[in-house]
Amino acid sequence: MNIQINPVSPESRKNPPESLEGIEFGSHFTNHMFLMNWEPDGGWQNARIEQYQALSLDPAAIVLHYGHEAFEGLKAYLTVSGNHVLFRPRKNFERLQQTSRRIGLPEIDADFGLEALKLLLQQDKDWIPNEPGCSLYVRPNLIATEPALSLKKSEYFLFYIILSPVGSFYAKGFAPVRIKVSEDYTRAAAGGIGGVKTAGNYAASNLAQIEAKKEGFSQVLWLDGKEQRYVEEVGSMNIFFVIDDEIVTPQLTGSILPGITRDSVLQLSRNWGLKTTERRITIEEVIEGIENGRLTEIFGAGTAAVISPVGVLQYKGKEYVIQDDIGPMAERFYDEVTGIQYGKTNDPFQWLEPIY
Amino acid sequence: MNIQINPVSPESRKNPPESLEGIEFGSHFTNHMFLMNWEPDGGWQNARIEQYQALSLDPAAIVLHYGHEAFEGLKAYLTVSGNHVLFRPRKNFERLQQTSRRIGLPEIDADFGLEALKLLLQQDKDWIPNEPGCSLYVRPNLIATEPALSLKKSEYFLFYIILSPVGSFYAKGFAPVRIKVSEDYTRAAAGGIGGVKTAGNYAASNLAQIEAKKEGFSQVLWLDGKEQRYVEEVGSMNIFFVIDDEIVTPQLTGSILPGITRDSVLQLSRNWGLKTTERRITIEEVIEGIENGRLTEIFGAGTAAVISPVGVLQYKGKEYVIQDDIGPMAERFYDEVTGIQYGKTNDPFQWLEPIY
Repeated sequence: MNIQINPVSPESRKNPPESLEGIEFGSHFTNHMFLMNWEPDGGWQNARIEQYQALSLDPAAIVLHYGHEAFEGLKAYLTVSGNHVLFRPRKNFERLQQTSRRIGLPEIDADFGLEALKLLLQQDKDWIPNEPGCSLYVRPNLIATEPALSLKKSEYFLFYIILSPVGSFYAKGFAPVRIKVSEDYTRAAAGGIGGVKTAGNYAASNLAQIEAKKEGFSQVLWLDGKEQRYVEEVGSMNIFFVIDDEIVTPQLTGSILPGITRDSVLQLSRNWGLKTTERRITIEEVIEGIENGRLTEIFGAGTAAVISPVGVLQYKGKEYVIQDDIGPMAERFYDEVTGIQYGKTNDPFQWLEPIY
Repeated sequence: MNIQINPVSPESRKNPPESLEGIEFGSHFTNHMFLMNWEPDGGWQNARIEQYQALSLDPAAIVLHYGHEAFEGLKAYLTVSGNHVLFRPRKNFERLQQTSRRIGLPEIDADFGLEALKLLLQQDKDWIPNEPGCSLYVRPNLIATEPALSLKKSEYFLFYIILSPVGSFYAKGFAPVRIKVSEDYTRAAAGGIGGVKTAGNYAASNLAQIEAKKEGFSQVLWLDGKEQRYVEEVGSMNIFFVIDDEIVTPQLTGSILPGITRDSVLQLSRNWGLKTTERRITIEEVIEGIENGRLTEIFGAGTAAVISPVGVLQYKGKEYVIQDDIGPMAERFYDEVTGIQYGKTNDPFQWLEPIY
């Protein structure tokens, strides 16, 4: 499919912010966006790059009532040698297809999606920041737009990609965060949609997140929806534990998002010869490990924060201190993943994809 | 708060459809809509009635990515004596508050919401159909509109009400439907959002619904998310069983929507002196009851369909025929509820609320 490019005129273009310091994650957007429409007659069509602008949606559009939606999150980087690159973008477009299948949305060819993204990034390449730790966050989004209240399958969809220059996901950057284990709420259950990237999961977690923030925590650690016992994920990232020098992360049971940073950490860990295990892990085992000193580190892994060490875990009203500072394993993974992303170290797995 | 009314000029007004026969549920809308905005400075503001028109939403609006949303569904009727009425509307605005609290959205004063709805209905009262079985479906919707990708609590919201003239929810009207018990998917789990009216629940159920329709079923019957054993609801309605002349419906466990038609059926049933029980009921008990003849009727209850007899239940690949025709209890509840709604029978519980 041909992609129509309607560039914003030079005089109408905004400039990227001079610095991203103090700018909230995902609150500023570039000059252009990619869009295409799905119609029953012809499927995906009208692929175009145009000015970033408000969407016109019928008040009865299905996405606004029934949440038929799939999204992705990935990042573009400016490497130290001056190349504009994406980190494992094909994985995101493949996961978008998985989400689409689970929610009941039309799929987008991964090659075409990636081509569209590259064309869009070429238009806004000046927005890929060269500040340390900064990047251009990419948000593909697929929404059901048909005006219909009857719980039918939408026959009209809009797919779009927007770009946002971002600094650290957490205000304090790469520093240990405080996490609260959710006991009152669940995020997802077996047979549900917790294993795909869709709006409903984030509606389910919003109140817990708000309450945790009020109590001074950055995020919520979710347990499984059946027994409220097995550790699942943090909502914006997967979770890793270092126990007796072994790297442990919850296995993908269907209600945990298969994170691409998670996968990268696992590949690196195995490549380094570390004992690396995906298995079910109970919150009791985690607490016991902290108490007896065999669990030495907890860290999250996700596109937004990359690697995020967990300093404090709160469970049943009690705070468990894991570490005051960044642990050596979190540091090592952070250095290696960001080293690859910014082209500072070798890219043995060919994770970087140039935008040209 | 004052509500600004900007009526559509007479020459720009559409006329209601001559007949609703063959028109899909919730696909046509009236001339006007109600809107108001929430801003951090001043809370709810700018309440207005204006022409039904497309919404302008930032592509990064939180509702389009993270599903922070709450909605309601209720109906306005033209009674046989020519009055324009709503059926138990205060319950809907109270439930909207419950949903808002659970999802983390600002609440709307129920009295104010109801006043806004009545003013809107007065503008479009000609759209309340006088065809038998038809009504004006009312859809209040509350969405998070702030452009922000950081998993924050939105500080900007839009609340709006749209109106759609509707006939029967099911194409075949008040006739037995075929329902499939979901075995592969779950809709909601304890601690989740299944007990409130929000988009995410309908994203979670869409694929099961699509697959069931392909196999010739109208809807999916959901079991609990923990054991996949206890009957919960149908997704667009609550479920009732007649067992040994007793009216049985699943008790509200937190993952079942507290339906207003459900509540009306329970009140009527108790008022009639029928044995009426809210309790947990397993799918095995239901199947056994069908097989041994003690379970004589199954019917759904919801705003859209009012009462919907279930003729066939499919479970584990086998079809169980409950009834070929409309059962006497479903008939009695349908006649009584719709009798009250259209002003044909007494309204002992004062369920009708005039719009003037």
